[in-house]
Amino acid sequence: MAEKSAVGFIGIGIMGFHMARRLAEAGFPVSAWNRTRKKATALERFGVRIADDASDAAKGAGAIIVMVSDGPASDAVIFGTEGDDGVLAAMDDGATLVVMSSIPMATAAAQGRAAKDNGLRYLDAPVSGGEPGARDGTMTIMAGGDQDAFQDLQPVFSVMGRSTHVGPAGTGSLAKLANQVIVGNTIQTVAEALLLAQSGGADPDAVITALQGGFADSPILQNHGRRMIAGNFEPGGRCAIQLKDTRTAVELAHAHDLELPVTSLVQQAYESLVEQGRGDLDHNAVWLELRRRNGLETD
Amino acid sequence: MAEKSAVGFIGIGIMGFHMARRLAEAGFPVSAWNRTRKKATALERFGVRIADDASDAAKGAGAIIVMVSDGPASDAVIFGTEGDDGVLAAMDDGATLVVMSSIPMATAAAQGRAAKDNGLRYLDAPVSGGEPGARDGTMTIMAGGDQDAFQDLQPVFSVMGRSTHVGPAGTGSLAKLANQVIVGNTIQTVAEALLLAQSGGADPDAVITALQGGFADSPILQNHGRRMIAGNFEPGGRCAIQLKDTRTAVELAHAHDLELPVTSLVQQAYESLVEQGRGDLDHNAVWLELRRRNGLETD
Repeated sequence: MAEKSAVGFIGIGIMGFHMARRLAEAGFPVSAWNRTRKKATALERFGVRIADDASDAAKGAGAIIVMVSDGPASDAVIFGTEGDDGVLAAMDDGATLVVMSSIPMATAAAQGRAAKDNGLRYLDAPVSGGEPGARDGTMTIMAGGDQDAFQDLQPVFSVMGRSTHVGPAGTGSLAKLANQVIVGNTIQTVAEALLLAQSGGADPDAVITALQGGFADSPILQNHGRRMIAGNFEPGGRCAIQLKDTRTAVELAHAHDLELPVTSLVQQAYESLVEQGRGDLDHNAVWLELRRRNGLETD
Repeated sequence: MAEKSAVGFIGIGIMGFHMARRLAEAGFPVSAWNRTRKKATALERFGVRIADDASDAAKGAGAIIVMVSDGPASDAVIFGTEGDDGVLAAMDDGATLVVMSSIPMATAAAQGRAAKDNGLRYLDAPVSGGEPGARDGTMTIMAGGDQDAFQDLQPVFSVMGRSTHVGPAGTGSLAKLANQVIVGNTIQTVAEALLLAQSGGADPDAVITALQGGFADSPILQNHGRRMIAGNFEPGGRCAIQLKDTRTAVELAHAHDLELPVTSLVQQAYESLVEQGRGDLDHNAVWLELRRRNGLETD
């Protein structure tokens, strides 16, 4: 794909809006489509063409980016539904299908095979960084699939953030799952260390400050750790989502005959929080669960 | 304590040497003593006076820093042994005893009480950062004890690194224990996430690169994670030490009627490694243990 070739963008949610806007502002000809057309029309003032349907957005584009809610929604857009042929049938030969939604690894692998069978290139390239990352072009993009396509798409990805190719189709989603596992387990770890410190008479907030810059330091310690000590469980990332991701990781591990002991234990903590109706709290609420299990007040 | 008042320094090991050297180079009058005198004499060319015994190093000093191997060694220096009265008896009224060795919390608390009973001030101020931190003055200093003494000692601490006061005597050691808990648990967490990624066909080294700068990132991911993937288990921090610290943390938690589920699980991993004779490997060897438990090759 030559630089500044046309991009089709499907799925104009909070993040998709900023991603499509940044591409248009960088000089890419962008055609956008969204199931609810109204959300897409705000892109017109950035020079984005609003497509009539997903197939229309795909035609003539070197890359089609899909940023819809989940795996089934991406399948519907790609393979079509009643009365809609889907983008796969509409794409130019040799064009690249880029699914940036967070989808199951198996969904990504199947989409990758279908794209190949249709003479297309494929990348699953989920992101982290949230709305600020999408707005400022500082997202982390984890890409699996065709390595040549990944190289060719650098001008596109670089507008949105920092991208890394991690393996074949599906491994972008897998890398994001690894990300979520580390986040959840580290929150639990920080909760245990801070509870120990607090119970022994240390000021846990001062302990967080003391550990800053050392081997024990992390964004989780500074962000989630400080907020749990302060009793702030406003999301951020919700327990229900953390449970879903952790469960997916443990199930995938089991499919590979793997036991991940700490991850399984952390899954139990999130299961318990969701069962208690705390699924909408920030995932740093394992602090509350750890205190509850130890018979301590939970604020 | 006024700036540049005399400092007694007891325990000239690898780290103590650099700490005493930096103090002398910063203009503090330093008297050093080491059980093996020869190790201390190399400090003379930096203007350090070599004391005849621990009491001699303590006399006339505003602060006495103890940097010996462990809790019992610090007790011996402070309270004396056969034929040696110890520094407590030799210190000037109102001087500050600063134990920078890593010692048990209960040892620090008892030393703090004894110091107070003798009209002295006390800080337990263990460090992290290893030899490079001691050499370059970039150590993390976690201090428990008399807050006024901590403030007065800022000119001394700032020569050695960044210091934070975290609570009463003993909590410096407790903060260091929290540090070790986070390090050990995070290594296990990183091992589980990378094994999941690798088993699903992702390049684990590329996954580490992909996660750089995001919420899942940490010095442990970048350092211990990369080395475990490369099959590099050269210490660094040894499994035997990580087991000792993790066991101490779990026992302390039990003394407070606390269960720390992930920390206890990580303790089991290090128990197993030490039982297998792998105690001298780097603590990132939980990667090997995780693979072994899952019936995979262990390189």
